[in-house]
Amino acid sequence: MKTCPVTVTRMHAGRFVETADLLAMEEPLQIQILFGSSGNEQRKDLAVTMRTPGNDEELAAGFLFTEGIISNNSHLIQLIPKASGENTVLAILKSDFIPDLQTAERNFYVTSSCGVCGKSGIDAIRRKIEYPIEKEPDHISAEVLYRLPEALRKQQEVFQRTGGLHACALFERNGNFISLQEDVGRHNALDKLIGNAFLKGQLPLRNKILLLSGRASFELVQKAAIAGIRFVAAIGAPSSLAVQLADEAGITLIGFLKGDGFNIYSVPETIIETAEQT
Amino acid sequence: MKTCPVTVTRMHAGRFVETADLLAMEEPLQIQILFGSSGNEQRKDLAVTMRTPGNDEELAAGFLFTEGIISNNSHLIQLIPKASGENTVLAILKSDFIPDLQTAERNFYVTSSCGVCGKSGIDAIRRKIEYPIEKEPDHISAEVLYRLPEALRKQQEVFQRTGGLHACALFERNGNFISLQEDVGRHNALDKLIGNAFLKGQLPLRNKILLLSGRASFELVQKAAIAGIRFVAAIGAPSSLAVQLADEAGITLIGFLKGDGFNIYSVPETIIETAEQT
Repeated sequence: MKTCPVTVTRMHAGRFVETADLLAMEEPLQIQILFGSSGNEQRKDLAVTMRTPGNDEELAAGFLFTEGIISNNSHLIQLIPKASGENTVLAILKSDFIPDLQTAERNFYVTSSCGVCGKSGIDAIRRKIEYPIEKEPDHISAEVLYRLPEALRKQQEVFQRTGGLHACALFERNGNFISLQEDVGRHNALDKLIGNAFLKGQLPLRNKILLLSGRASFELVQKAAIAGIRFVAAIGAPSSLAVQLADEAGITLIGFLKGDGFNIYSVPETIIETAEQT
Repeated sequence: MKTCPVTVTRMHAGRFVETADLLAMEEPLQIQILFGSSGNEQRKDLAVTMRTPGNDEELAAGFLFTEGIISNNSHLIQLIPKASGENTVLAILKSDFIPDLQTAERNFYVTSSCGVCGKSGIDAIRRKIEYPIEKEPDHISAEVLYRLPEALRKQQEVFQRTGGLHACALFERNGNFISLQEDVGRHNALDKLIGNAFLKGQLPLRNKILLLSGRASFELVQKAAIAGIRFVAAIGAPSSLAVQLADEAGITLIGFLKGDGFNIYSVPETIIETAEQT
């Protein structure tokens, strides 16, 4: 259930009217892990995220992978939704696999104590990238990019979801739609998308295009990088650190994508004009 | 420095053009605290947030207060920016004051293990609300609300900031502007706004209107509630849990605010029509 119906008081043109509205669902999800040697397992509360219910296994898998807790399929034995209550998901890790629970904290520590924030931040996270971006000269065409915002909108209708959620979608390099996820939290939407591919054994997502319905932050580009995604396009603006990371990781970062134009913030040589115009 | 200039490749109408663009700055900020008895102080890395540089003291103060680490001015002796590097801020707490560092974690634990997420979540956070919303019958008029989106836009221009950032602003009940903060992270923008008032000794913000440039999430309404703000208006949509918290805390929550209309999600009796129309 992504939305819930409510009755609200609508004020318009000087009049109050009772009217029906749909709210995007938001609830906390506790991600727990069970790890350690057989007979000596530890259970740990890892994180709580405010998310839209649904696809909790994908969210947990994507979170564990993109935060560097696990680095491949073999580290994850099973995901058990509702293991300790409605809004929990328990990830059972491979016996004897010791997850690096300090990854995020240590990286940030390196970042912040070093002083030259941007550079050191990016050095710190590089270690976490499982699938380095391949420098093979793949291209995408402007014509394909132009079609993505409308394709996203149509897919959101297909999934009968509200426009009040952050969305991200995966497309083939020719523009064919692969998958879509929505969430009140944009990190969650991307974790669900990557987690879905992770659970299907489809990583790295080398020749795919990731489309973000909003802005492109450092953390979103980082998650894309960790999943091996080479092309990231955002309907909104990228941040300074998102551009810096994309540039260093070899990711093509597109911003302000519309049906008739866009900005290229990194690796512009991977974007070609339409066949008709060359 | 809220923005940095870059040159990007703009694709429009089948042509590539080099053009100037402004990126919203994003860098990590490490919030540290020093606490304990005199001569036996402990220094602890509390959190890292990806934020737009500037107003780091306000951000730290607002974070410490709205996350329940400190509950009033007397707990905070001094804020030292750049104490351990460029992107750090150190909060020196009152000697012998023992901060409740498990607040957020414990609350979320209560939430997620209880099972009935929404209700228990709200019970859990209630303890953190320093300034309960007063039930005195204050009102705001629709006419005042209509003017806020335009007032926000004008103030953002005054501050010469980019539109690519989340903004939040505080207004008097008659619509007079008080303060504005912007950030790549919307929680940060609100922490800066509340932290600014906290450092000036202006809490609780009882008769103020908080305007959010985007959506209203549970965590944003929670921060408003902790600061005693009674009126929260968002340009975007509220989430289900934001509405539930507003309803229970006695906060008037407005969504989809435009120059000629809005939705009222809670405590609708606090909204009156314009003087001209009654």
